[in-house]
Amino acid sequence: MIPYDSISQPTLLLDEARCRANITRMVRKAQASGVRFRPHFKTHQSAEIGEWFRPFGVQAITVSSVSMAQYFAQHGWRDITIAFPVNWRQIDVIRELASQVRLGLLVDSVETAETLVEHLRAPADAWIELDVGQHRSGIPQEDVAAVQRVARALSRAPGLTMRGALAHAGHLYHASSPQAVREGFTRIVNQLQEVRGQLRGQGWDDFEISWGDTPTCSLVDDLSGVDEIRPGNFVFFDLEQLQLGACREEDIAAAVACPVVSKPDGSRVITYGGAIHLSKEALDSGGEVSYGAIALPQDGGWSPSLPGAHMVSLSQEHGVGWMHPSDLDRVPLGDLLVVLPVHSCLVVDLLPGYTTLDGKSIATMGKR
Amino acid sequence: MIPYDSISQPTLLLDEARCRANITRMVRKAQASGVRFRPHFKTHQSAEIGEWFRPFGVQAITVSSVSMAQYFAQHGWRDITIAFPVNWRQIDVIRELASQVRLGLLVDSVETAETLVEHLRAPADAWIELDVGQHRSGIPQEDVAAVQRVARALSRAPGLTMRGALAHAGHLYHASSPQAVREGFTRIVNQLQEVRGQLRGQGWDDFEISWGDTPTCSLVDDLSGVDEIRPGNFVFFDLEQLQLGACREEDIAAAVACPVVSKPDGSRVITYGGAIHLSKEALDSGGEVSYGAIALPQDGGWSPSLPGAHMVSLSQEHGVGWMHPSDLDRVPLGDLLVVLPVHSCLVVDLLPGYTTLDGKSIATMGKR
Repeated sequence: MIPYDSISQPTLLLDEARCRANITRMVRKAQASGVRFRPHFKTHQSAEIGEWFRPFGVQAITVSSVSMAQYFAQHGWRDITIAFPVNWRQIDVIRELASQVRLGLLVDSVETAETLVEHLRAPADAWIELDVGQHRSGIPQEDVAAVQRVARALSRAPGLTMRGALAHAGHLYHASSPQAVREGFTRIVNQLQEVRGQLRGQGWDDFEISWGDTPTCSLVDDLSGVDEIRPGNFVFFDLEQLQLGACREEDIAAAVACPVVSKPDGSRVITYGGAIHLSKEALDSGGEVSYGAIALPQDGGWSPSLPGAHMVSLSQEHGVGWMHPSDLDRVPLGDLLVVLPVHSCLVVDLLPGYTTLDGKSIATMGKR
Repeated sequence: MIPYDSISQPTLLLDEARCRANITRMVRKAQASGVRFRPHFKTHQSAEIGEWFRPFGVQAITVSSVSMAQYFAQHGWRDITIAFPVNWRQIDVIRELASQVRLGLLVDSVETAETLVEHLRAPADAWIELDVGQHRSGIPQEDVAAVQRVARALSRAPGLTMRGALAHAGHLYHASSPQAVREGFTRIVNQLQEVRGQLRGQGWDDFEISWGDTPTCSLVDDLSGVDEIRPGNFVFFDLEQLQLGACREEDIAAAVACPVVSKPDGSRVITYGGAIHLSKEALDSGGEVSYGAIALPQDGGWSPSLPGAHMVSLSQEHGVGWMHPSDLDRVPLGDLLVVLPVHSCLVVDLLPGYTTLDGKSIATMGKR
């Protein structure tokens, strides 16, 4: 039974059945496409949820920090890519990790390649990060000469295996339609395959393409143009993915139960549940800023989100929500709202672990 | 000595001298105005920093949650106002706290007053929360009849002392100028005094006015129109306060050291330091969104912020900054940037404790 009665503070709810269904769906798609599934564990940050992937034969994972790699290495994962540029200041920990697990590292400059050549003692995998349009880290994908320079620098390290190119099409989070996401995938992957073609002629014959992001992995049916996929958010999805068309609302598997502490007028509701619980990640919801959609607790989970109801502003601990007066009438002071998050990864990072709908606690790695 | 060499991950830096100077300045202003100083501890969330107030005779504090009240009660504070509407779901903990300390509670409805009447066993202080324009929780200040209804309901609890009205002028964070903040204070306080006048005639003779928010407490010279002040952010300030004119940049006492992990072109810098370290709180900086200003480490602290340099986007662990090419040239990969936060309260909540400029660690209450 869902333990709503015992909830007194903002609490991260996990619908385990939905989460497991999301995992199953992505496993099947990777299998059907014939690509390696290296799920990104930065979304759930939980050893226990990680175990839900093992029955499917998943052995390789992605993380976003060195400390997250340490955490999952401690929990038995032996093939871990840190999908974040090598942080020189953590080179000692990286070296130690490389001696414990098969470690994948991201490189986007000759200088970082040389740092690895100098400091790494154990074998490791290197991925050249390409910028395919997000303009975060990475070598611009059209700059094949720079890719070659980094590949050559990496080849000077006896223990490093240059695996290929790693891309994260984060800019497709802002695509205008599912079709635009699909077209973006096709266009970028064609370009990446061209880069691969040019490198193959020069001795890098096993050059792979590693592909990230939940929108494309959810919306594109055939992912066989790449060698591995690294989606993360799909385990829970959220309003951002819903708005993109990458999921249905009934796939959203994580939400935050928030006590109602004030009803200052007929349509405003004040929750215990603010920026330190929901994060300040916002989206445009029909011309209005939204920090979350609002649903109600119900047997076995939570209701569909209430039409138009959303969190309109957040301060540190307070949330201010707008609800249709007839909906707000049904919510007495002291009741709970269930807020569907804009960005589930950030909410998970903010809250101390999950409560499942049958009342089980599931820990995350926490702050370290 | 500032321990920059030992920093490998995003790290919350605290300039203790600036923080103590900020505290001293606010203490002096409260003394000069003849108002009670009840600092809000939600910004620093630290027992150790709390101790820095005691030499000034500060005995009363403000917190934003029941768990924060518990934490500071454990650390010897005996007069604590929870400046957040009573959360019925925590009434048992509230009752226990009320038996341990002089507890101030916020009430903005007859229903909540009746809940206290029914469940509270130990004496406590009640403050009627008034909405003075932020439109968060609180009774609209012009609705004196509603204030009277709540006051009457509270008077039915033998142990409850109705202390007065509590206001937080959070909307003045968006004021257009320091003068607009000052005028807002004068206008609102005049209205609050009118409310007080009407209640005094009806038997509530000791009706006090408790006033929050750092902008007014920083910008208004004479605060004697109210009875107590509850600023919090002033201990560290941040870019939001700087933009408002409530502080100088050299008053900002908290910042985040972030390793530089990629320099993909001549003006972009990628930091280990993203949304889970800096929060997604943003401000408009000359027409551009900013998630933080960028300074450089230097002997004894950090440099003034670099002209134009700011964090332009954040993902979970990555920050993307823009710097003038001549500044970026001075920052090799592996160096640190110092990011001045948009909203220091949220950054403190995200990071596990402080590192002072002389290398001391200071704990916060952490997630609970």
